[in-house]
Amino acid sequence: MFSTVSGLSANSVITYEDMETVVLDPGEKEPLVYVDHVGDAVLFSGMSGDDDIPGIGQYDDFHTIDWQRDIARDRMRHRYIVKKRQDSIWDLIKGAHDAWSGWVCVLLVGVCTGIVAGVIDIGASWMTDLKFGICPQAFWLNREQCCWSDTDTTFDTGNCSQWLTWPEVLGGQRQGPGAYIISYLFYIVWALVFAALSASLVRMFAPYACGSGIPEIKTILSGFIIRGYLGKWTLIIKVVGLILSVSSGLSLGKEGPMVHIASCLGNILSYLFPKYGRNEAKKREILSAAAAAGVSVAFGAPIGGVLFSLEEVSYYFPLKTLWRSFFCALIAAFILRSINPFGNEHSVLFFVEYNKPWIFFELIPFVGLGIIGGCIATIFIKANIFWCRYRKFSKLGQYPVTEVLVVTLVTAIIAYPNPYTRMNTSELIYLLFNQCGISNSDPLCDYNRNFTDVNSAIEKAAAGPGVYHAIWLLVLALVLKLVMTIFTFGIKVPCGLFIPSLALGAIAGRIVGIGVEQLAYNYPRIWLFSGECSTGDDCITPGLYAMVGAAAVLGGVTRMTVSLVVIMFELTGGVRYIVPLMAAAMASKWVGDALGRQGIYDAHIALNGYPFLDSKDEFQHTSLAADVMQPKRNETLSVITQDSMTVDDVDTLLKETEHNGYPVVVSKESQYLVGFVLRRDLNLAIANARRTMEGITGQTIVIFAGTGNQPLSPPPCLMLNRILDMAPITVTDQTPMETVVDMFRKLGLRQTLVTHNGRLLGVITKKDVLRHVKQMDNEDPNSVLFN
Amino acid sequence: MFSTVSGLSANSVITYEDMETVVLDPGEKEPLVYVDHVGDAVLFSGMSGDDDIPGIGQYDDFHTIDWQRDIARDRMRHRYIVKKRQDSIWDLIKGAHDAWSGWVCVLLVGVCTGIVAGVIDIGASWMTDLKFGICPQAFWLNREQCCWSDTDTTFDTGNCSQWLTWPEVLGGQRQGPGAYIISYLFYIVWALVFAALSASLVRMFAPYACGSGIPEIKTILSGFIIRGYLGKWTLIIKVVGLILSVSSGLSLGKEGPMVHIASCLGNILSYLFPKYGRNEAKKREILSAAAAAGVSVAFGAPIGGVLFSLEEVSYYFPLKTLWRSFFCALIAAFILRSINPFGNEHSVLFFVEYNKPWIFFELIPFVGLGIIGGCIATIFIKANIFWCRYRKFSKLGQYPVTEVLVVTLVTAIIAYPNPYTRMNTSELIYLLFNQCGISNSDPLCDYNRNFTDVNSAIEKAAAGPGVYHAIWLLVLALVLKLVMTIFTFGIKVPCGLFIPSLALGAIAGRIVGIGVEQLAYNYPRIWLFSGECSTGDDCITPGLYAMVGAAAVLGGVTRMTVSLVVIMFELTGGVRYIVPLMAAAMASKWVGDALGRQGIYDAHIALNGYPFLDSKDEFQHTSLAADVMQPKRNETLSVITQDSMTVDDVDTLLKETEHNGYPVVVSKESQYLVGFVLRRDLNLAIANARRTMEGITGQTIVIFAGTGNQPLSPPPCLMLNRILDMAPITVTDQTPMETVVDMFRKLGLRQTLVTHNGRLLGVITKKDVLRHVKQMDNEDPNSVLFN
Repeated sequence: MFSTVSGLSANSVITYEDMETVVLDPGEKEPLVYVDHVGDAVLFSGMSGDDDIPGIGQYDDFHTIDWQRDIARDRMRHRYIVKKRQDSIWDLIKGAHDAWSGWVCVLLVGVCTGIVAGVIDIGASWMTDLKFGICPQAFWLNREQCCWSDTDTTFDTGNCSQWLTWPEVLGGQRQGPGAYIISYLFYIVWALVFAALSASLVRMFAPYACGSGIPEIKTILSGFIIRGYLGKWTLIIKVVGLILSVSSGLSLGKEGPMVHIASCLGNILSYLFPKYGRNEAKKREILSAAAAAGVSVAFGAPIGGVLFSLEEVSYYFPLKTLWRSFFCALIAAFILRSINPFGNEHSVLFFVEYNKPWIFFELIPFVGLGIIGGCIATIFIKANIFWCRYRKFSKLGQYPVTEVLVVTLVTAIIAYPNPYTRMNTSELIYLLFNQCGISNSDPLCDYNRNFTDVNSAIEKAAAGPGVYHAIWLLVLALVLKLVMTIFTFGIKVPCGLFIPSLALGAIAGRIVGIGVEQLAYNYPRIWLFSGECSTGDDCITPGLYAMVGAAAVLGGVTRMTVSLVVIMFELTGGVRYIVPLMAAAMASKWVGDALGRQGIYDAHIALNGYPFLDSKDEFQHTSLAADVMQPKRNETLSVITQDSMTVDDVDTLLKETEHNGYPVVVSKESQYLVGFVLRRDLNLAIANARRTMEGITGQTIVIFAGTGNQPLSPPPCLMLNRILDMAPITVTDQTPMETVVDMFRKLGLRQTLVTHNGRLLGVITKKDVLRHVKQMDNEDPNSVLFN
Repeated sequence: MFSTVSGLSANSVITYEDMETVVLDPGEKEPLVYVDHVGDAVLFSGMSGDDDIPGIGQYDDFHTIDWQRDIARDRMRHRYIVKKRQDSIWDLIKGAHDAWSGWVCVLLVGVCTGIVAGVIDIGASWMTDLKFGICPQAFWLNREQCCWSDTDTTFDTGNCSQWLTWPEVLGGQRQGPGAYIISYLFYIVWALVFAALSASLVRMFAPYACGSGIPEIKTILSGFIIRGYLGKWTLIIKVVGLILSVSSGLSLGKEGPMVHIASCLGNILSYLFPKYGRNEAKKREILSAAAAAGVSVAFGAPIGGVLFSLEEVSYYFPLKTLWRSFFCALIAAFILRSINPFGNEHSVLFFVEYNKPWIFFELIPFVGLGIIGGCIATIFIKANIFWCRYRKFSKLGQYPVTEVLVVTLVTAIIAYPNPYTRMNTSELIYLLFNQCGISNSDPLCDYNRNFTDVNSAIEKAAAGPGVYHAIWLLVLALVLKLVMTIFTFGIKVPCGLFIPSLALGAIAGRIVGIGVEQLAYNYPRIWLFSGECSTGDDCITPGLYAMVGAAAVLGGVTRMTVSLVVIMFELTGGVRYIVPLMAAAMASKWVGDALGRQGIYDAHIALNGYPFLDSKDEFQHTSLAADVMQPKRNETLSVITQDSMTVDDVDTLLKETEHNGYPVVVSKESQYLVGFVLRRDLNLAIANARRTMEGITGQTIVIFAGTGNQPLSPPPCLMLNRILDMAPITVTDQTPMETVVDMFRKLGLRQTLVTHNGRLLGVITKKDVLRHVKQMDNEDPNSVLFN
């Protein structure tokens, strides 16, 4: 039934009436018309035999997928399985397996993501500590675990007798200038070793493993093929490289790459289930769930992860995917929590608990923090994009390992002397988020107050000299981190920027928080403070300001909104602080949008020229389909006629033009549209016919049957109705481009045909749309590279 | 520029070339082609003058809206404002107002929703207590508030000396059989009074105020017009009726109606902002946000509210709406919390805190609860739909007030003797969710254990006789509530079913929980219990089972998934219990889907025949556009030709057919498609032309210009290019219906035109699609009533 091309004898022609009888299976009313959706035929014949043209229905690298076709293929496959299910018990089991495969697949993705995240956390924590010293009795333990076995000292000082710093290992002292220099040198050497390893691994084995991967995953999820980007080598190198680069003390985080790693796992595991592995559109459902799992394990925030996937990353997100993504994210978080790499009781990364609720007037400094955050984020994005563009178009891009080493060296030299940049960035964030309690001995908590016991209220107090000293160090850290992150994000090691952004915001927020706190202490009679601050208790929590500032900068950099707020509150466990977080995130987003339109991911997508049609941008212009379509005036459209071109004609057309597909029309004179045929399919079908059929010469007429009543053309002829899409999406030439853009976005089109009164006028491809959007926004349309 | 119909002299005809010059404003390249999107022109002229046909661009009652057209209208309006902004400062302010109006509108909706929710909570709480007694010193206080001023007794007993029960008011005793009978009678009388008032108000002033409103809001949000459903009378009556019906002790909740009330507020407030009030598609963005705010105040769950709106209610939910909905939901929750109607500290409705985490093996009973919940939900849905269908098609439907009174009487008589049905359903749920602590004196907590102090761990203990008695009462309550809710949901008072569903599940869950707990106590050596239950502490928390059971039943009834889990955890503050909640919700949904396809809202939508095209159902069949389109074989399609029909011809066509729109073709012979014109617009335009233009007779040729090069037709003629949509969405006859259904859903179409090789074959309307879907699912296609 599905063997039209190879099975029919070469000199028989089917008219419309004949076709109907062939086409319709009378019992089922199952029309063969689905054959026009090429993939179906492939899949079917793949099940029922091997009489098909290999490769049809697949995509080339760096090409856009056709969502409608893939989804139609999947429904066809589904119907086939449902129908077969009644045949035998084995088919019933296969049907059940198929029905469950989505859930099983996301379960596996969740489990694997959780395990891999645990490995990364443990590895990065151990190697980060390796820069400072070693646990001689059990070298595989990090400092915290090493000190657990030691009951002599409290962990808070950071050193215990079990754990030896490098000066001690070399037989020296723990303190003193000599020890400091040795520590400093060891720190730099280890950092360079880790960074060099990471960069070399990436360069040698998997160039796609560098960066955060989120811009590319956004593009892939929007329906684009980048072969190998989610492959096993990328996965392995990204995991190893991420551990190394995080440990090297560079200003980067592991959260963005976790999304990439989870997506790799999603891609690899989807190949276990043909339903997903062999269908690019369906595979993206798994990838969306995997992205949610990635954020979920990165922050311990399953709901935030799902919203991140929905809001930021995913393109085509049917609602049933929401539930599966949530399941996947939850499983991943659950597995990671069972592994418990941080060894703490709380399920959240930066668990905080403040004694005091926030006060209404504090919304003013919170919004102020939002504005500051938006400005910091804009500086970061502009400078980073400038630097990345410079790297891309200059000689610098040819020496990635050298660049990594230079950045690492500079970072290590500057970072070590300042305790706030020397420590792990996550620890820094945790420290800044925290409230000064009885057990906190950091200079940041050097207030002139006496703690009586843990449960008593914290009294209002003047800041001591330690706090002022810490503020100066924090200002330095802010500048250093900002500058270093600008140069770091984009170098050829796995690197994310969630954690650096959070750190930048937390530093700014803590400084502002201490300022407001001291204001309230010194001027308690100002009307703003007179209400809640008139009692002796502390009324301002600088840690909350740090949290709000962190949200502001992260929001400005990524332009996340709801997902940001949810991640922040899952991250910190602070349900009460949604309103401040939201106020800051909103202010930051508005400031960011006013100063520069794009978030960092969109800016990187534009820099790399990926064909990403943002579903959040509205197309605001008044152009029409006729203005955008190819060919322009005075050019002719390359078309194929349904029944009058020879194989040679088609070959010539394929050679002379480079389009990815050709409209099929009734005749060149009338230009009435019959269907659409893809270049790739045409090539494959003709090659296959030449190989397998007799009597195919250059003079053989190529027939795309479909309409009937034409006189029988004389044999021999080649029937290619199999590869003809008889249901191309069309628009009229008067259709406003906003509707066309909407159709491209919502229906996931690759191209649409433009007609006027039924006649074919031209074609609009996704690339045309993207170039038109760029042009309308006064950007360079040639920066869109792929189709 | 926009005065073609009325402005052009009647005997001038514009050819294509002329038109181009008229059409294109050469400086702006702003083509008049937008005129084809009729609304634009109306809106424009509404701003720049009043030379337009009134009513064009509006919709009739019980009609489907055209999303694409409305959104195009809005973008046109936006462009106009942006362009005008440079003219003067006043225009700049107007532009800023327009840009902010979305945020201002949702802010207002949030504030109003919060206030109205506070009023409802306070009113319902006072009137519920009125059934039992009164506070003589201050009759406007409810029992709790009344007792606050009284320090003699603990509130826990429910009675204090300030608060007088009705027997006491009448001079009798508080206890004793006489007092019991008097209380019983008062309870019944008050219930009947409240219910009668509520039903009469609804019947007299606002019939749309009955029910939960969620099915209708789903339909409205999917793009349907029901005039008055979200009007001010519905709002007022729904608020008052809801307070009354909740107070009457019927088995119903106020959460569903809160969504309706919030949507009414959204609709009314949107009229303050022409951007939203005058554009049905844009208005739905506000309504989505309002629905989120409704759930947010109903449960104190802003994130859950947004997800509910996204997952369950909304249809067209662009991502920027997500952020606004979240803002709206948050403001509403914030305002409600400031009003603090419950007078408790916690922001969540049923705040629970369990000492013990859940144990892994408990997933088995949790999944079991999910299955039980799914079964209960299915029984409820099937029985309720059966009863509603009976009511709809029998005489019963004619006596709504009588029905309400009968249901109320039966409910009151049965409910009073059982303390668990007598109490407020929210209180019951809270009681069931709670852990038995030192202060809990309910029979449910009658365990053989001694509490030493509040902080000590709860020891494992055998259940006392009070617990067994309570279980029997709970079983009775379960049956009663199930039966009564079946008869209650659908009567003509405002009533929701979130709270009854939660209560059903909580009862079932608590019973199962006590069972598992006693099993663990009596058989501590079974391997399942041997791990965590081997210490003396209590390891099973029956309250958690109640929570899980509640989620299971609610999930089965509504088929919510992610939003359910998020609402439950926001409702209870229990972040640790996401996995159990999810397991139960999942099991319940699967059982529900296996036993009956539809959730309660979808079932009610189907019962009422609303044109709702579910975006979650996949269309699984193999039919083609050609199978679905009108006309069928051997019928002719009603078309209008572009330049050869007279006014009389058009009038005849309008009289003889009832279609909502007509395709415009080049000529009847060729059937090449030019555009589409709406019946309503055609009627209005012809009537307007007759009124305002000279020389319009029955013989005047009607011209839908658009294509050129035809010979000038002799004057007089009527140019109607203004109302011609030159960019109708078309599909080919071979397009699979799954693609067509997808286009209807994603693009929000009202109809699509079917072509073959450029020739028009027929039309598919949303009604045709819905009927086809029903037919394919072996349901009655005639149950789809509206278009």
